[in-house]
Amino acid sequence: MIDHGGNLDVAQRRFGGRPEDWIDLSTGINRHPYPIPELPAHLWNALPSRAEIESLHGAARQAYGTTAPVLAIAGAQAAIELLPRLAPPGAAKILVPTYGEFGHVLRAAGWSVEGVSDVESLAGADLAIVVNPNNPDGRHHDPQWLKALASRVGRLVIDESFADAVPELSLASQAGRAGLLILRSFGKFYGLAGLRLGFALGGEADIAMLARMVGPWPVSGVAIEIGRRALLDRAWANQTRVWLTRDAKRIDETARNAGWELVGGTPLFRLYETGDGARAQERLARAQIWSRVFKDGPSWLRLGLPGDETEWQRLSMALSR
Amino acid sequence: MIDHGGNLDVAQRRFGGRPEDWIDLSTGINRHPYPIPELPAHLWNALPSRAEIESLHGAARQAYGTTAPVLAIAGAQAAIELLPRLAPPGAAKILVPTYGEFGHVLRAAGWSVEGVSDVESLAGADLAIVVNPNNPDGRHHDPQWLKALASRVGRLVIDESFADAVPELSLASQAGRAGLLILRSFGKFYGLAGLRLGFALGGEADIAMLARMVGPWPVSGVAIEIGRRALLDRAWANQTRVWLTRDAKRIDETARNAGWELVGGTPLFRLYETGDGARAQERLARAQIWSRVFKDGPSWLRLGLPGDETEWQRLSMALSR
Repeated sequence: MIDHGGNLDVAQRRFGGRPEDWIDLSTGINRHPYPIPELPAHLWNALPSRAEIESLHGAARQAYGTTAPVLAIAGAQAAIELLPRLAPPGAAKILVPTYGEFGHVLRAAGWSVEGVSDVESLAGADLAIVVNPNNPDGRHHDPQWLKALASRVGRLVIDESFADAVPELSLASQAGRAGLLILRSFGKFYGLAGLRLGFALGGEADIAMLARMVGPWPVSGVAIEIGRRALLDRAWANQTRVWLTRDAKRIDETARNAGWELVGGTPLFRLYETGDGARAQERLARAQIWSRVFKDGPSWLRLGLPGDETEWQRLSMALSR
Repeated sequence: MIDHGGNLDVAQRRFGGRPEDWIDLSTGINRHPYPIPELPAHLWNALPSRAEIESLHGAARQAYGTTAPVLAIAGAQAAIELLPRLAPPGAAKILVPTYGEFGHVLRAAGWSVEGVSDVESLAGADLAIVVNPNNPDGRHHDPQWLKALASRVGRLVIDESFADAVPELSLASQAGRAGLLILRSFGKFYGLAGLRLGFALGGEADIAMLARMVGPWPVSGVAIEIGRRALLDRAWANQTRVWLTRDAKRIDETARNAGWELVGGTPLFRLYETGDGARAQERLARAQIWSRVFKDGPSWLRLGLPGDETEWQRLSMALSR
């Protein structure tokens, strides 16, 4: 397994403290989560019905602005695990630097994997992968360019795990075309990563193939109900976009005061040039704030956004020391 | 997708009624579920940590009486979906009649699949599959015979989805041997099928391969916590075994009074010879009680056990008409 954020147990072993002492900013998970509603007993007890799963798919189509076939899966990661099996192993190109699981999963399944640094160089791949906006540097890719690219590769996978906060970047409306497959994360923007929910949006053949791979009950009853409600709640999503955009500016100021320079980011996380990522991580960890560093960018530090005012104060304090 | 129980939406479309009007006895899911505990917020919000997942694995080892490597997965069904990928397609033999998904999933992945009617005929298969106790007829297979079979096939998969109520049938204690893989369902015995939780128990290589296939976060935070607590609760499990065994006798009497003959079963479901399964199903469905019929056994009807006294009364009434 490769390194991820969210590994707070590693932080605890190295720096001590109880889980509840820590502020975990090592992921891009919204710390103002969608509220958990009352959950009727049948969601726990019974197998999810086709009708329930279809109503979740409908909510996802509405939230993402598409009429394309949709499949609920146990997190965007679960969809990534299935990608190598959509076609016989061939030549994959990935726009890098980005989320490490794509290369990892494809190589393990016998694909040749090349990392390229610009969209144009993806042309000709059997499988091209773009994360938009990108993780960890927040790079934006013009959806029209990506749409044009789709016809120049075997299959284009766009991971829009962080697109909820910047919906203008999404190509979800085009997801029905053959050869284009879009992945969405539910847990990040809605702050419910423990729920394990995500979606694949794509052409009929791809979605049918993925549906066969995951079987009849890929997500839990509570994920179906909470996901459905949250995705239909436009007011919450709009409000959250406003908050996150405002808070992203606030954390950039805090970081600037600490001498860090913004590399890029999305309203869910920020990447900073700190001079020495490991040292910056340790500085925060001593104040029980966990962050993410990168082997490929040793001077970088990625931070999610703090939640309540106490968390903001602790971050400011830790960085002013 | 193939036919399953739990498809209450089909019943409603055919026979009317609101979901809450129906008693769903079409599955073998315990209708006295394990109580949902208080759920700390981080189970919803954060990605499950390695430590949390490992503590669930420890609880499963304790409950199933094994020291073998264990992997939590999103239901026994999720493990079935992965079976065809543990080895290159070859010759699979399945002890039939049984749960239809094994043959379905293996054929779709290019395996040759032969149904055989006795354990001895499984010998020589690249992949042999036994459900113990069997679904739908409750057939028991001597674990010592199965243990001996393991060395005469490429890989022996034993689906123990219904073994919690008859633990003396389990081979979990032997699961560490190479070539033996055991599947366990959590949701049936604990009455929490909506949670999507199950386990694979096996040799180190098989479990490591399955772990790579499912990725780092295959089950939800709430499934981890509820599963862990329930599996460690011996008193609840013992009490539940007593109840289910008593209730199985009671439903058999009710069925006998209706003129049905017991074919077999487990303490979680009973299979009856009714003369005409479709007519028997319709008779119950008019009283908003849903049951399971089988294409391969048109005179059979399978019933799960009713929950509270009202449900028992409704079943008696429906069968006395």
